[in-house]
Amino acid sequence: MLKFDENWWFESFRGALEKRQEIESIVDKVTEEGYDNIFFLGIGGTYASSMQVVQHVKEFSAMPTFVEHAAEYMTTGNRALNKNSVVVFSSVSGTTEEVLVALKYIKEHVGARIIGFIDKENTPMGDLADYVVIYPMNEQLKFFMLADRFMWNRGDFDDYEALYEELDAHLPAALVDVEKRADGFGKAFAEKHHKDEMHYFIGAGNQMGATYSYAMCYWEEQHWIRTKSIHAAEFLHGTLEIIDRDTNVTLFLGEDSQRPLAERVKAFLPRICGNCTFIDTKDYPLEGISQRFRGHISHLVMMAVNRRIDAHLEKINCHPVEIRRYYRKLNY
Amino acid sequence: MLKFDENWWFESFRGALEKRQEIESIVDKVTEEGYDNIFFLGIGGTYASSMQVVQHVKEFSAMPTFVEHAAEYMTTGNRALNKNSVVVFSSVSGTTEEVLVALKYIKEHVGARIIGFIDKENTPMGDLADYVVIYPMNEQLKFFMLADRFMWNRGDFDDYEALYEELDAHLPAALVDVEKRADGFGKAFAEKHHKDEMHYFIGAGNQMGATYSYAMCYWEEQHWIRTKSIHAAEFLHGTLEIIDRDTNVTLFLGEDSQRPLAERVKAFLPRICGNCTFIDTKDYPLEGISQRFRGHISHLVMMAVNRRIDAHLEKINCHPVEIRRYYRKLNY
Repeated sequence: MLKFDENWWFESFRGALEKRQEIESIVDKVTEEGYDNIFFLGIGGTYASSMQVVQHVKEFSAMPTFVEHAAEYMTTGNRALNKNSVVVFSSVSGTTEEVLVALKYIKEHVGARIIGFIDKENTPMGDLADYVVIYPMNEQLKFFMLADRFMWNRGDFDDYEALYEELDAHLPAALVDVEKRADGFGKAFAEKHHKDEMHYFIGAGNQMGATYSYAMCYWEEQHWIRTKSIHAAEFLHGTLEIIDRDTNVTLFLGEDSQRPLAERVKAFLPRICGNCTFIDTKDYPLEGISQRFRGHISHLVMMAVNRRIDAHLEKINCHPVEIRRYYRKLNY
Repeated sequence: MLKFDENWWFESFRGALEKRQEIESIVDKVTEEGYDNIFFLGIGGTYASSMQVVQHVKEFSAMPTFVEHAAEYMTTGNRALNKNSVVVFSSVSGTTEEVLVALKYIKEHVGARIIGFIDKENTPMGDLADYVVIYPMNEQLKFFMLADRFMWNRGDFDDYEALYEELDAHLPAALVDVEKRADGFGKAFAEKHHKDEMHYFIGAGNQMGATYSYAMCYWEEQHWIRTKSIHAAEFLHGTLEIIDRDTNVTLFLGEDSQRPLAERVKAFLPRICGNCTFIDTKDYPLEGISQRFRGHISHLVMMAVNRRIDAHLEKINCHPVEIRRYYRKLNY
């Protein structure tokens, strides 16, 4: 299978889940100290992951949990973010400019506790955090583990132990299996859409951050293909008018609370569009994962499917995903 | 001037400002009773207006003020929305399906106080509200007047009286003047872009809701031209990679706290794009409006400029803005 080392992915997921003990000890300490609210601070891809986890929390808890955009924070500010707040961020490089500046400001002028997930040791962002968890990739899983523990500590997430018992035992194999099952689809999809002048991605619930991020951080940034991402419920209030028979449209269907919003679009779209694709997490068995927990990991399932599209798109288009035209090539 | 009755617009703005007394009495009563938080409930265009007012509040206050999406609310729910919450909505028709359903649910099962702005009397949504303000159009102005009064009552907006004294005296004429000054630009822009296969709109701050809404509710829904809207700070984290010399890009620059984020894009964009337009509210005099208040009304200024584009686009494209392909034509 193209660009797929089964063992490597299995170990990547397994290792991420093993960081849970470390995350729990941080969250439990912060919970004991008390906090007013939690801000997931991000930009670009990490902003999208933040949207996903905040949406997830909203399903289960009134815990005051927000997305804060690093660049917006440094201009508008946020008066609700105070020294009794918790700021959570994630970074691959540990150097993203806007987030680094915001963290410095928070450290020096606000005094909120900062928890960072960074892919590697010894980074400028790591130095600013009160707590750092070092582990590569798996950003959403890290965010969800942290948020779930915070919710459990508040009594809002009774399933915490049962959920993670299952994930520890079955998630790595289940996600590897998804990728293997999705390879044929990914290849056919990439062959059909690799020359698209424009592609619409639609999603809802914890797929919305994934939709936003897949369209922008993968197709636009890595494949240089134009996209628009739109929430399923919003799609029906404007964007639908520019859809016709040949428009390239892909709808992500997950299994969380907002699945009905995606299903509404699924029922309608084929009436006006002859070129739409539905990617539905329900099509993947996820052995060992209970029905009631499938929604919690829908975004991870979708990501596994999308990785197969990416692998084939990269090859067909002869466009290595590492290259950028402008990002970190020019100063701006 | 095409599709422009100066007197009608002047009276429309003036009449909206005159609703302030009615709004104040509602807000003062709710403030006296006390409230936990305020939710602007919307979908599509009213969701965009909600984003604008929540962003505006964030500049001045820690007042817990949120956007709640009507369709998301009916699936995911929102545990922070309780009987001590205030729910604010706006509607032209008073019948928008998703908002109507959400309001019914809130009325029957939550008991939060509901304040509605509706364009006309005797609507299903009006019947569900505890307080209704009837006045056509001017949605953002209504939302801002309400939010500013709430902030003033908390002691977070000392400028309230000075601001509205100026707006009452000068805003209607200033906005009419913007539209007259922008007509030549609007015509030239429409002539240049009326056949665009794709157009990118970029904005920040209280322009972000306007950017989202202008792209989706005007170009996509009314002109049937494809667009993508993106926040200025996010544009630099992905979308920039698909911009080249000929890409149609328009950047909205307002005068609120996030202007620097738009200015950063303005400085960079011409290096990679030979087809970008900057629409800057600073280019309009707004006679009688103090420098420090210009940011508060940047979104209204931008909307006035965009109305000139719309008028010419409609004529050049022989595409009446009232027609829809699908919305309210099909059941879905």
